[in-house]
Amino acid sequence: MTTHSSATKTTHASRGSETAGQVYLVGAGPGDPELLTRKALRVLQSSSVVLHDDLVSPEILALASSTATIYNVGKRCGRKSMTQEEINARMIGAAREGHTVARLKGGDPMIYGRAGEELQALRASGIKFEVIPGVTSAFAAAAAAQIPLTDRRFASRILFLAGHRCSAANGFDGFKNVAPDSTVVIYMPGENIAQIAGQLKAAGMPAATPCLAVSRASTPRQQIYHLTLGELRSAPRWPAPAILIIGEVARAPHICSAEEIAPRSKMFEVCSG
Amino acid sequence: MTTHSSATKTTHASRGSETAGQVYLVGAGPGDPELLTRKALRVLQSSSVVLHDDLVSPEILALASSTATIYNVGKRCGRKSMTQEEINARMIGAAREGHTVARLKGGDPMIYGRAGEELQALRASGIKFEVIPGVTSAFAAAAAAQIPLTDRRFASRILFLAGHRCSAANGFDGFKNVAPDSTVVIYMPGENIAQIAGQLKAAGMPAATPCLAVSRASTPRQQIYHLTLGELRSAPRWPAPAILIIGEVARAPHICSAEEIAPRSKMFEVCSG
Repeated sequence: MTTHSSATKTTHASRGSETAGQVYLVGAGPGDPELLTRKALRVLQSSSVVLHDDLVSPEILALASSTATIYNVGKRCGRKSMTQEEINARMIGAAREGHTVARLKGGDPMIYGRAGEELQALRASGIKFEVIPGVTSAFAAAAAAQIPLTDRRFASRILFLAGHRCSAANGFDGFKNVAPDSTVVIYMPGENIAQIAGQLKAAGMPAATPCLAVSRASTPRQQIYHLTLGELRSAPRWPAPAILIIGEVARAPHICSAEEIAPRSKMFEVCSG
Repeated sequence: MTTHSSATKTTHASRGSETAGQVYLVGAGPGDPELLTRKALRVLQSSSVVLHDDLVSPEILALASSTATIYNVGKRCGRKSMTQEEINARMIGAAREGHTVARLKGGDPMIYGRAGEELQALRASGIKFEVIPGVTSAFAAAAAAQIPLTDRRFASRILFLAGHRCSAANGFDGFKNVAPDSTVVIYMPGENIAQIAGQLKAAGMPAATPCLAVSRASTPRQQIYHLTLGELRSAPRWPAPAILIIGEVARAPHICSAEEIAPRSKMFEVCSG
């Protein structure tokens, strides 16, 4: 197990005090409370303050200590929310008061969760902290659809992208660079899906390339959609949070029997939980 | 617990029987038994047959039922090992005998683990199966080094590659396609590290690009190395299994204090657990 004790055994008061608490950046996994790691569960149960994103499910929050103070610091669209600076301040402030703080993030904390900014603030504060990795929703999506993300026969690499970063307005340069043996995984495809589809086709990816979208992977409201790249542009918006997987791996047959698979020309839902 | 019922209530022998067992493809996580998911632990404890890869640690295997039969079906270099077909046959054969089979794979089962071939065999067998996602070693490496894998300020995408696939002999086309805002994560960098370094430089990546290598992430023998792309070519081989992370995220300061960080011109080890 990693020990970071040397970093926090400090004699400088400005780098934290002996009565200060500790912060854990914790991966809460994709949604199913059973997909928490044992370590994440232990930390959640022993924390006196829990700061969580919107994507962390009530079933997971229910595992926290009954005496813990729980804050939703989520930053979903359409709702007034805390700034990153306010989140940092609350996290560090609680630890300075002596609390053990679980900062719960959906999936793994190190991808698409502003962990970089929180780590920076934690380092500057001198508060002791630890990161507990988690199961990312892309892996839960692949597990649900029973498709691999790599296959030595045809998919040797995976490219992870965030949907909201895939627009020219964000300086995104399209997919001209995607190698043919890639699996493309898009987190939060959201509103940019038509643009993403156009960019992939412009990059030379065939319209028949299989795609798989999984909404709310691992939760009771999980939905799995099969479609093709050519159908992406006109796809309805999937319930959030969603994962979109594009590439030959998505062509693999899945657990539903062949009879349940509708023609590729029509998007459909299978295996909803 | 597994039942070994001898009842023979079967009508579709070729598609499995009611007395047939079940197979779980289980992500065993990066090494630390505390990073198993709760679900993986439950399945491991209730399986009567465990088939595991070499990378699954003894500490994790010790969590299996004391009455379970445990097989190492690992395929590490330099050792005579089972073929993929033999692994498939043993997995399906045990389930047909009524066993609950845990097929344990290091990290997440869907990446770099031949899950595609095992899923295909399972589908053909008619045996019931389920995939349980896990924490991949790249996330454990980032958690250990306390660096994000994405950062909205400078790293919007992640590319996962397997080191042994990064050679021209395998048809690898180099890194000319890597966008500047990418984090490149290489699993099992192994013997191809000098070639990978050369390809990245040829692709225009600056020699000063920060790199981070983590050996045996999350285990008591974890080692963390900081270096630059320019130093990769002459880097000694890290103890396997290792993860190599290349990109601006690796530049982020880590928990060790600045005093502990040696000059970038020299590879060094910090934070070993």
